[in-house]
Amino acid sequence: MIRHLLSSADLDAGTALQILDTAAEMATVAGREVKKLPALRGRTVVNLFYEDSTRTRISFEAAAKRLSADVINFSVKGSSVAKGESLKDTALTLQAMGADAVVVRHPASGAPYQLADWVDGSVVNAGDGTHEHPTQALLDAYTMRSRLGRLAGLSVAVVGDVLHSRVARSNVLLLSTLGAKVTLVGPPPLIPVDIAAALAPGATVCYDLDSVLPQSDVVMMLRVQRERMNDSYFPSAREYARRYGLDGSRMRRLPEHAIVMHPGPMNRGMEITSEVADSPRSTIVEQVANGVSVRMAVLYLLLGGNNR
Amino acid sequence: MIRHLLSSADLDAGTALQILDTAAEMATVAGREVKKLPALRGRTVVNLFYEDSTRTRISFEAAAKRLSADVINFSVKGSSVAKGESLKDTALTLQAMGADAVVVRHPASGAPYQLADWVDGSVVNAGDGTHEHPTQALLDAYTMRSRLGRLAGLSVAVVGDVLHSRVARSNVLLLSTLGAKVTLVGPPPLIPVDIAAALAPGATVCYDLDSVLPQSDVVMMLRVQRERMNDSYFPSAREYARRYGLDGSRMRRLPEHAIVMHPGPMNRGMEITSEVADSPRSTIVEQVANGVSVRMAVLYLLLGGNNR
Amino acid sequence: MIRHLLSSADLDAGTALQILDTAAEMATVAGREVKKLPALRGRTVVNLFYEDSTRTRISFEAAAKRLSADVINFSVKGSSVAKGESLKDTALTLQAMGADAVVVRHPASGAPYQLADWVDGSVVNAGDGTHEHPTQALLDAYTMRSRLGRLAGLSVAVVGDVLHSRVARSNVLLLSTLGAKVTLVGPPPLIPVDIAAALAPGATVCYDLDSVLPQSDVVMMLRVQRERMNDSYFPSAREYARRYGLDGSRMRRLPEHAIVMHPGPMNRGMEITSEVADSPRSTIVEQVANGVSVRMAVLYLLLGGNNR
Repeated sequence: MIRHLLSSADLDAGTALQILDTAAEMATVAGREVKKLPALRGRTVVNLFYEDSTRTRISFEAAAKRLSADVINFSVKGSSVAKGESLKDTALTLQAMGADAVVVRHPASGAPYQLADWVDGSVVNAGDGTHEHPTQALLDAYTMRSRLGRLAGLSVAVVGDVLHSRVARSNVLLLSTLGAKVTLVGPPPLIPVDIAAALAPGATVCYDLDSVLPQSDVVMMLRVQRERMNDSYFPSAREYARRYGLDGSRMRRLPEHAIVMHPGPMNRGMEITSEVADSPRSTIVEQVANGVSVRMAVLYLLLGGNNR
Repeated sequence: MIRHLLSSADLDAGTALQILDTAAEMATVAGREVKKLPALRGRTVVNLFYEDSTRTRISFEAAAKRLSADVINFSVKGSSVAKGESLKDTALTLQAMGADAVVVRHPASGAPYQLADWVDGSVVNAGDGTHEHPTQALLDAYTMRSRLGRLAGLSVAVVGDVLHSRVARSNVLLLSTLGAKVTLVGPPPLIPVDIAAALAPGATVCYDLDSVLPQSDVVMMLRVQRERMNDSYFPSAREYARRYGLDGSRMRRLPEHAIVMHPGPMNRGMEITSEVADSPRSTIVEQVANGVSVRMAVLYLLLGGNNR
Repeated sequence: MIRHLLSSADLDAGTALQILDTAAEMATVAGREVKKLPALRGRTVVNLFYEDSTRTRISFEAAAKRLSADVINFSVKGSSVAKGESLKDTALTLQAMGADAVVVRHPASGAPYQLADWVDGSVVNAGDGTHEHPTQALLDAYTMRSRLGRLAGLSVAVVGDVLHSRVARSNVLLLSTLGAKVTLVGPPPLIPVDIAAALAPGATVCYDLDSVLPQSDVVMMLRVQRERMNDSYFPSAREYARRYGLDGSRMRRLPEHAIVMHPGPMNRGMEITSEVADSPRSTIVEQVANGVSVRMAVLYLLLGGNNR
C-alpha cells in the first residue's frame, strides 16, 4: 500500500481497486447497530484545513471516528499561517504531537507534497488549489461502479470549468487508470487542448454538450466557482447555464441507464437544475455517503490497517 | 416515543414526564466515577449551528459524549449557506453521512421542521428564530420539579420580552401541558394580548411585576436582547430595569419557597441583579446542569435507547 | 498534588519533579501500538480559549484524548464574552456542565485565578496575558533534563522581550525552583532591572548576548511579538535581529553540548535563523512532542489519576 494519498496519479489500477473493495466492506459498517470499528483506536487523525470546507472536513471526521481514531480539527484562519515556511513549522508541530495522518486542504497546489516531506505520518490530500482532490475521484469511481457495475469501458463526460477544477483533474487521472473513456466538455477557454492532452492523453475534448449526452454512461457536472464568473474567459452566468447547464430536457437525451453526478455543493439553477439534481438518475446524495466509506478505506489502508 | 423534538407542543404530558424521569436517571451518571454510558456508542450526533451559541452547543455535545455518541460540530458562518435551498442540500449531506441525530440552531423560525422533512434521523430543535427552544423548556420544568416537588398547580411568572422569546414560547406550551398556571409579565408592547391568548389560552397577562410576585412559586426572568433595545416598543434600559428587573427588594416579596430562574446568559444589572442571581433562590446554575441531563434523556429516547 | 496549575510559583521542587517523572512515563505511551490510556475515561476537559492559539489548544486536546477524556473546545470570539462578570457566568456554566478540568487561555493576566475561585474542577493556565504559561515551563524543563540529564546547576539564557513574555516568567520561576541559573538577555527597555529582581532574585541580567553564549548550557529564544515592534522601547526589526537574533555564527560560540530552545511559533530570520532552528542543537520539535507528554502528566495528576 502507498503511504500518502496525494494524487490520483499515485494510484495504479490494483491499488485503486483495493481501496474501492475496502470501501465496500466499510459501507457495511454503516448498516450495523453500532456503526464503529476498532481498527484505528489510539491513532490520531488531524484535519488541517487552510480553506473552509465543512463538507469535506466532516466527511473525513466521520470516517476517522467510525474507525475509532481520535480526530483533531486544525482550521487555519487568516493568511499569516498559510505562508510557505510556516506550513513547515506547522507540519513539524503536528508530527511532534504524534499525528498518524494529516488530512490537508490548502489553497496552494502542491502543498500536500511539501507536507509529506516533513512528516512521518500519512498525508491525505483533501484538495490543493486547482491541482487534485483524489478522495473525491475515488468516491466518484466507487459510485459509478456501484451504480453501473463496472468502470472499464464506461463513457464519462466531465462538464464545466475543467481548467481550474481539482475534481476534474483527479477524476480524469483515475478514470483513465481504471479504463473509462473520458470526454471533457465546456467552454473552449476553460478546456485548453494542450492541457487536456497533457492531463489525459486518451481524453476527448468537446465543446458541445448536447452532442455528447447520447453516448454517455455518466455525466459529471462540475461546480461553477461564482468568483470566476468575472474572469474574461468565462461566459455570463445565463449563457453558461444555457449552453452547459444540465436541465431536464438535456437529461432526457442520456441513455436510460446513465447517471448524473455532482461533487457538491451545487449551484442549483446554474450548472444543474433541481429537476435533475433530485431525479432518480442523480447520485449526488449517494456520493456523499460513499465519501465516508471511501475515506474510511483510505485511512484504514494508509495507517496500516491491513498489516495489523 | 416521538421521532423528532421540534416544539414543546409535540409533547403530551406522558411523553414530557417520561423525558423528565429519564433525565433524573441520567443525572445519576454525573455522580459516578466514570461519567459515561455506552447507550449511543456508534451513533453520530451532528450539531448544526447557524447561529453562535456556545452554551447550547456544548451542553448538547457534553450530553451526547456522556452517552458515548460521536459528535460532529458543523458551525455555519456567513449567510450564503443559510439560504433555504442550501439548508436542504446540507440536510441531505448530513443524512448521507449517516447522522443519527441533527441538533439544529437556526435564525429562521421553522427551519427544524424543514430539516425533519429531509433527513431520516432525528431532529432536535435547539432554538429557531423567535419560535421555540423545547429542551430549554424541559430543563426548566425539570428544575421546577426537582426544587418544588411538582409541576401541576404551580404559579409561574414569565417576565420580559415574551413576544420575541422562544424560551418563553416553549415554556408556556410545556407548562400548560403539565398543569402549571402561567402569568406573562412585561411591557405591554412585548406581550400582545392576542398573541398571548393564541399561545396559551389559560395564561394570564399582567403588566405589573410587583403585583404578581407574592402569588408566584416560580419567577422566570427572560434575557433582554440588547439589540432590541432600540426598537420603538421597548422602554429604555434604565426604565426596563426599574419596572421589570428583579432586584433584591422585589425578590423578598416572593413567597419563601419560591425560586428564581433565568435561561442565561444573564445581563446582570438589567433584567436581574447579581444579588438575586447569586442568591440561594436562584436556580440558574442548576438549570445548566439539568440541561445536560435533559439533553441526554432526549437524545437517548429519540435515538431509540428505550427500544434496544 | 495541587488542585490547579495557575503559576510556576505554585510548584515546589518535589511537585515539579513528580510532573516531569510522570511525563516521562506518559511519553512511553506515544511509542505503543495503541497510543491511549484509559486513565481519564468519563472525565471532561474543556479548552476555554479567549485567544486564538491552535498549537496550545491541540496539544492539550491530544493530551486529554490520549488519556481517554472527553474534550470540549470552547473558543470565545469577540470581546463581549471576555468581560469580567461574563467570565464568572461562563465558569459557572462549565462547572454546572460537569467540567472536570478547564484549560484556559485568556488575554487578561490573572483570569485563571478568578476562574479557579468559581469552579470545583481543576484549572490549568494555558497562558494569561503577560503573566504565566506554566505548562510551557514544564515542557521546557522536561526537554532540558532529557537532553542534558539534569536541571540543577544548568546555566540558562532567556533571550528577548522578557518584560512581556509569560513564557519567560514561568520559566524563570520554575528554573529557579529547580536550581538552574538564569540569565536574562535582551534590549534594556525590555528587561527592567527592578522587574527582573522581583521576578527572580537569583537571576542575572545582561544586555550583551555574545558575552553570555560561551557559558550557557541552554539558550532559550523568545518569540518576538511583531505587534510590539512599533512600541517606542523596541528597536527596529533589523536592529533587533542583529543584536539579539540567534544565527549560525552565534550558535557556534555555545559550548558543544549546549541546546537551543524556542517555544514556537518562530519568526524565522528574526529572533532565530533557519540554520539554527533546523540544526541538531535545536530542541524545537522535541519541545512540541514533550508538550503533549507534560500536559498528559498535568491532567492526570490534577484529576486525581494518582489516587484511583
